[in-house]
Amino acid sequence: MFVILVYDTAAERNPKVLKTCRKYLHWTQRSVFQGELSAAQYRALMGALTTIINPAHDSIVTYTAREPGLVRSATLGLELGGPGEIL
Amino acid sequence: MFVILVYDTAAERNPKVLKTCRKYLHWTQRSVFQGELSAAQYRALMGALTTIINPAHDSIVTYTAREPGLVRSATLGLELGGPGEIL
Repeated sequence: MFVILVYDTAAERNPKVLKTCRKYLHWTQRSVFQGELSAAQYRALMGALTTIINPAHDSIVTYTAREPGLVRSATLGLELGGPGEIL
Repeated sequence: MFVILVYDTAAERNPKVLKTCRKYLHWTQRSVFQGELSAAQYRALMGALTTIINPAHDSIVTYTAREPGLVRSATLGLELGGPGEIL
């Protein structure tokens, strides 16, 4: 499945959130990752993030589509993302 | 169409970006909006944002799907968004 993940987490937890998201997805932009995952990988990512975030203060939203072809992406301005991008 | 918009813009331009996005979409989370737009509304929003951002420094990414039903959203932690949410 195609996954877009956006996170709004406390600064002290951002490094762990970033590290975990990077294992599964490509960084797109500040606070945004995207990529293709199997259902099992998606569950593993959600499980790992659940152990990192504080659910009373942090928020992670995912958007998933069965296939990448169902979602079109477009960029205005800088094209920031890419698998090798350094934050 | 269903639209997810994420922005990474310079602080001094954020108020204008926010104001423009709010005219068309619902705020979801820090830097993220979503909603349903016609093709004409989407073009109008992109046109308005083009006049606001500095393409050498700012980045706005949109993900669009023909129908909202093609994209599932899920939240870990806080449910921040909502049409009435105040930033």
